[in-house]
Amino acid sequence: MKPWLTSLKTNTPQEGFELAIKLSQMAVVYTQPSEEIRKKLRPKYSKNANSLISVSQVVATNFQTVAAANNYWNKNDGL
Amino acid sequence: MKPWLTSLKTNTPQEGFELAIKLSQMAVVYTQPSEEIRKKLRPKYSKNANSLISVSQVVATNFQTVAAANNYWNKNDGL
Amino acid sequence: MKPWLTSLKTNTPQEGFELAIKLSQMAVVYTQPSEEIRKKLRPKYSKNANSLISVSQVVATNFQTVAAANNYWNKNDGL
Amino acid sequence: MKPWLTSLKTNTPQEGFELAIKLSQMAVVYTQPSEEIRKKLRPKYSKNANSLISVSQVVATNFQTVAAANNYWNKNDGL
Amino acid sequence: MKPWLTSLKTNTPQEGFELAIKLSQMAVVYTQPSEEIRKKLRPKYSKNANSLISVSQVVATNFQTVAAANNYWNKNDGL
Amino acid sequence: MKPWLTSLKTNTPQEGFELAIKLSQMAVVYTQPSEEIRKKLRPKYSKNANSLISVSQVVATNFQTVAAANNYWNKNDGL
Repeated sequence: MKPWLTSLKTNTPQEGFELAIKLSQMAVVYTQPSEEIRKKLRPKYSKNANSLISVSQVVATNFQTVAAANNYWNKNDGL
Repeated sequence: MKPWLTSLKTNTPQEGFELAIKLSQMAVVYTQPSEEIRKKLRPKYSKNANSLISVSQVVATNFQTVAAANNYWNKNDGL
Repeated sequence: MKPWLTSLKTNTPQEGFELAIKLSQMAVVYTQPSEEIRKKLRPKYSKNANSLISVSQVVATNFQTVAAANNYWNKNDGL
Repeated sequence: MKPWLTSLKTNTPQEGFELAIKLSQMAVVYTQPSEEIRKKLRPKYSKNANSLISVSQVVATNFQTVAAANNYWNKNDGL
Repeated sequence: MKPWLTSLKTNTPQEGFELAIKLSQMAVVYTQPSEEIRKKLRPKYSKNANSLISVSQVVATNFQTVAAANNYWNKNDGL
Repeated sequence: MKPWLTSLKTNTPQEGFELAIKLSQMAVVYTQPSEEIRKKLRPKYSKNANSLISVSQVVATNFQTVAAANNYWNKNDGL
């Protein structure tokens, strides 16, 4: 696979959150490389509340990683 | 998307918890941008105990991140 | 919402565990503000083993946060 | 509720694991206080593989907390 | 129960991963002590993709603990 | 099992993410050693959105471990 993740550093928490979304998606891409199949799945899960909650769980987990990598975007705090 | 997350810092744990809720919701917004569809899903999952428990799980995960970012709202403790 | 979470500090691990339970419940309260609906859901999920296990998962996640906030109730340990 | 959790410290990792099991159970006790109902649920979920895997997930999460509280039972390591 | 967990330290990451598997299994053993029943469950869940993914989730959680206990098998790094 | 995990260190975050995928897969391999059975399961779960989201959850959890082991690929930061 081509380079898609060269750093966990982002300028803002929001960019970090968006990186967490990307990480969540990329695990799916690695597991199901066919874009065609993934596109077929999308209309269904994106209208299913429980699937959306599960997606949010994955993003939350990846955001923990990205946030820690950025020291929570705090500069010079006591951590 | 417009700026919606400029800092993980909050004044109180309660505001931090509310930010965790917002983070949980925003992952859904990114995944299902249609407000119309999201509104249709709400009446169902908000009356389903298992869905509500899953929501609480996502919030708990995001609250870990927000709490760590705020050093658990402890000032000058030994951490 | 009225103030309900002013600190993550508790005197004992048990109080911390009970705070973790409260955090788990409050995410549900924010998501489903109607006490009437929540009360209707209770008899069902509280008799469903899988729901109870899921509740315990949420509490475990929140307890991680509360325990870390209290430095695991250790005084002057090496952490 | 009577005192049941006065410390997260244990002498050995195994005792810590057993404490993690207790924490997992106690969240259920708080949510479903009726011992009669809990006993009725047990035969079913304890013979269901997915329920048992979910229990193991809760224990794993609580064991993270207990292990951290005990500094992973390492003495004088560099952490 | 006989001693089965005297340390979280392992010589290699792979042994640590195998310990994480053992921890995941032992939570099931504590919850369902009957080896006969557990053996009956095995053929089913070990051929169910979702069950296997859930098992992998438990192992991942326990591996976090074991890896932290071993300082990620890094010697003298800056952590 | 032959050696397959000698270090959690990787050169880049992307390699770390790919290691997280490998860890997620290996827990399945340990639980279901038959390659034949695993191959049969693949077509089904890789076309099921909820299964793919669950896979992404496992990868996210393992990526937390790998990222921490690599100090988030930050050199000389304040952590």
